[in-house]
Amino acid sequence: MAYNTCLTRPLVSRCVRTATSYDVIHHLDLTARCCYSGSSTSPSKDKNNKNKRERVVILGSGWAGYAFARTLDPKKFERVVISPRSYFVFTPLLASTSVGTLEFRTILEPVRRLPEVGFYQGWADDIDFNQKTIRVEANAIGDVGKTAPVLPAATSMTAASSSPKTSPSSAKGDIFNVSYDKLVVACGAYSQTFGIEGVRDHAHFLRDIGDARRIRLRILSLFEQCSYPRSVNGSGLSDEGKRTLLHFAIVGGGPTGIEFAAELNDLIYEDLARIYPDLLQFVRITVYDVAPKVLPMFDQALAKYAMDTFARAGIDVRTEHHLERLRLADGELGARNGALRIKIKEYGDEEVGAGLVVWSTGLMQNPLIEKLAGREFAVASEEGGGGHAAVVDHLAKDAKTGGLVTDAYLQARTSSSSSINNGGVLKDVFVIGDCAVVEGSSPPLPKTAQVASQQAIHLAKRLNKGDITKKPFSFHNWGTLTYLGSWKAIHQSSADELKGWVAWIVWRGAYLTKSMSVRNKILVPVYWVMSWLFGRGISRF
Amino acid sequence: MAYNTCLTRPLVSRCVRTATSYDVIHHLDLTARCCYSGSSTSPSKDKNNKNKRERVVILGSGWAGYAFARTLDPKKFERVVISPRSYFVFTPLLASTSVGTLEFRTILEPVRRLPEVGFYQGWADDIDFNQKTIRVEANAIGDVGKTAPVLPAATSMTAASSSPKTSPSSAKGDIFNVSYDKLVVACGAYSQTFGIEGVRDHAHFLRDIGDARRIRLRILSLFEQCSYPRSVNGSGLSDEGKRTLLHFAIVGGGPTGIEFAAELNDLIYEDLARIYPDLLQFVRITVYDVAPKVLPMFDQALAKYAMDTFARAGIDVRTEHHLERLRLADGELGARNGALRIKIKEYGDEEVGAGLVVWSTGLMQNPLIEKLAGREFAVASEEGGGGHAAVVDHLAKDAKTGGLVTDAYLQARTSSSSSINNGGVLKDVFVIGDCAVVEGSSPPLPKTAQVASQQAIHLAKRLNKGDITKKPFSFHNWGTLTYLGSWKAIHQSSADELKGWVAWIVWRGAYLTKSMSVRNKILVPVYWVMSWLFGRGISRF
Repeated sequence: MAYNTCLTRPLVSRCVRTATSYDVIHHLDLTARCCYSGSSTSPSKDKNNKNKRERVVILGSGWAGYAFARTLDPKKFERVVISPRSYFVFTPLLASTSVGTLEFRTILEPVRRLPEVGFYQGWADDIDFNQKTIRVEANAIGDVGKTAPVLPAATSMTAASSSPKTSPSSAKGDIFNVSYDKLVVACGAYSQTFGIEGVRDHAHFLRDIGDARRIRLRILSLFEQCSYPRSVNGSGLSDEGKRTLLHFAIVGGGPTGIEFAAELNDLIYEDLARIYPDLLQFVRITVYDVAPKVLPMFDQALAKYAMDTFARAGIDVRTEHHLERLRLADGELGARNGALRIKIKEYGDEEVGAGLVVWSTGLMQNPLIEKLAGREFAVASEEGGGGHAAVVDHLAKDAKTGGLVTDAYLQARTSSSSSINNGGVLKDVFVIGDCAVVEGSSPPLPKTAQVASQQAIHLAKRLNKGDITKKPFSFHNWGTLTYLGSWKAIHQSSADELKGWVAWIVWRGAYLTKSMSVRNKILVPVYWVMSWLFGRGISRF
Repeated sequence: MAYNTCLTRPLVSRCVRTATSYDVIHHLDLTARCCYSGSSTSPSKDKNNKNKRERVVILGSGWAGYAFARTLDPKKFERVVISPRSYFVFTPLLASTSVGTLEFRTILEPVRRLPEVGFYQGWADDIDFNQKTIRVEANAIGDVGKTAPVLPAATSMTAASSSPKTSPSSAKGDIFNVSYDKLVVACGAYSQTFGIEGVRDHAHFLRDIGDARRIRLRILSLFEQCSYPRSVNGSGLSDEGKRTLLHFAIVGGGPTGIEFAAELNDLIYEDLARIYPDLLQFVRITVYDVAPKVLPMFDQALAKYAMDTFARAGIDVRTEHHLERLRLADGELGARNGALRIKIKEYGDEEVGAGLVVWSTGLMQNPLIEKLAGREFAVASEEGGGGHAAVVDHLAKDAKTGGLVTDAYLQARTSSSSSINNGGVLKDVFVIGDCAVVEGSSPPLPKTAQVASQQAIHLAKRLNKGDITKKPFSFHNWGTLTYLGSWKAIHQSSADELKGWVAWIVWRGAYLTKSMSVRNKILVPVYWVMSWLFGRGISRF
């Protein structure tokens, strides 16, 4: 059954894909190992294996986890990623895929393509810090990208995001344990719905590739629905119905919401206008935000430029508007066409109709973080095998955000600080990305891809050098970019401010040089050119 | 809300995309029209509108319907396509997308991208040949590509294919009528399951893009499932379980089944072998066929070459094997992992385990064809408005295949032949593609893409010239190509026979020149190169 792959792949293939024969599967009852080079040793706690590499387990495959796994030296560490999704998503281009400018897969990097990285697709369910084992629920069948954004309505304050499963307790997947020598918690945050009725059931999020696909299908389907003639019994869509369905509401005026509104406007006026010219009269795009201004991270002049650009494009921006409820419209329009009704505080009892509501505001902690913060572990028992030491402690939680507190070296803080517990850190446990709160950062670091990837790279480099506490993490703001549609963008950093097409060039250029595989660095520009020449992808599939 | 698209698109864009402002939506109670240039005239039965273009309605967007719509002259005819799916699928490359060599959307051509073609996404439910109206059920929300291949188990002899809805009678979509001047029935055929228990519920078909996506997810998910360690309570997969799940069974040894087996083998040994090296020992691919030899359309030498190639690759081909039943495996393996059990007549009671069964054998008529054959219409009443004439007739159905019979000019035959009904044809109704049986073809024309597209182009050209009966349709066999994996193929035509890499080059070249948009003619080779350099797409999404 042997195929000679040398004949079928060029040399460059072997350079790029670095094929190594690591074994992924070893059957150990409690300490599953995914190591390479055929070595199926027991964990390196075993003092006889001083020259074995330590196993670093990374929870999460987002900006923090994926960048960390890429950067950590495989010669020094065995790397194992545990994540419910099998890929990293290049989130700044998510809005572009949701409108068909880019193909979905061009912004995905499968974790399994990282050479020599072990991977278990599943949910980290619990951690025993004493035994250094992670309890994992397998998630190979139900991929995150495929599931619907609807969560059980009962727990209204819980998470609702692209990761629709709040907790693996309603388990269907197998449960297995994975041991670690060092642990990096990088499991990110969930979308915050602030307990607002109907958001979890009826709004679309824009955080994972499955969200982008659902949004794209919904936009195209809405236009198709409005293109039918009146039905035989006269029950088809009225103009008012079309006006409802072709109202696209975006909640949240941060960069994600603004970029999505801009990309949607491009799709509609550059592509769909040619296909459904009669429907343009019914189209509206509205961005709602509770704050007095959108894009708070930009200075006044750039934010004003953005708003002027939107005004010219006809995108309505409503600041100081509070969404209070989201529900399916009554009658046929709701039941058959999925039309929604938005209740906004400032409008009193009058509801606004919409065909699509995209929710892009607020983050909340992953429920795993809360659970981990509650787990007790023995301190001063580094070598202690079975017996627990008398002194127990638990991880420190940030009172305000609920995140896990770290010291300046990204080590997990314990709630009490004393000499017996390494001066208040839990040895070998690190927290990076959206779920980390770094001590002493004032103002607190924003929950952005930049912070997450800088933390990941900092920590991996320090571990590679073996001097974690030599240099504290410090964040370098590379500036912020937001696309405004129609080949315009704004860019702001400590060094400069740009707007218009110059910023657009910086924007596209910047995205190409960021953490992407060579494959996607080629494919993304190919799709940009193809969409420019031939229009965006509009096949509804 | 005006965007200046001139600024944002190059000149070539306007050439390629030919933006015209046709109106898609006109609200007429019984005669919905989708015409362009703003003319919302009544159907051209109206004798006062001699200079208006006739409306040609095409049922279906496959090889026949799409090629016809592309070829018919828009200056002479108003073209309207009615199809449950919004795109044409380039089926010869479907197997390539199901294993990640190509991106799904590179083999889709949205009907709405055809300039000036009106489109209604929906199921043609019934036709009134007297009134020249088609009853359509809207299908804008539930796109075919998204639905599961599972049909209600009750009607075991009915259709099961990528078009899982056998009949729109369980209607959810709006029902509306579309009028025609000329009608082209090109609604294709469904997969035939021969009433075998469990096939419709548990096998995967490979006829539409949604099928390809489900197969791709399933293959990748099966490897992921088998990569987990034993679970905490020891309930994970045994080696035997892995051997079951990684058995890929293909039923049907025609070109589709053989090409899928070849592409799957390439995926496994060129890509997945590097990622899951320990799982290769459990992998098996088997092709089952009831006939004594596979690839019946190839001569003995080429078929033997194909079988030798497969034997070297380790693909098992079992001819004269009859599948009798397909069911979910008992216990956890079936319930949690979706493992299947195949009962094969030749093996007696012993069942074969498999993780994926791909069904690629046999076609049956679309239920609409049966319905149309039963519809009576008045003959000798060409100008007759309301009152039916005394003489009624109905369409002629081929006794053996159930298809609609046409004369040599592809006009629909009526069951009785006399001078009052145009010598036995129903005027203005044409049938092409898999649902047509052309009189006098001996042996009957095969149900292939070649036949369908040649019929479509023949008919469109004749209508363009206004001389339907000048030249009968005749089929020119361009030869047959089948990919065998590992850069080899076989090609046979009346002129030559090719095998090995020469045939492979012909194969790839031929596919590029066929009916594809410029966009996909560029993207397909781009993906071929990308997959060659960097491996196939393996992100499970």
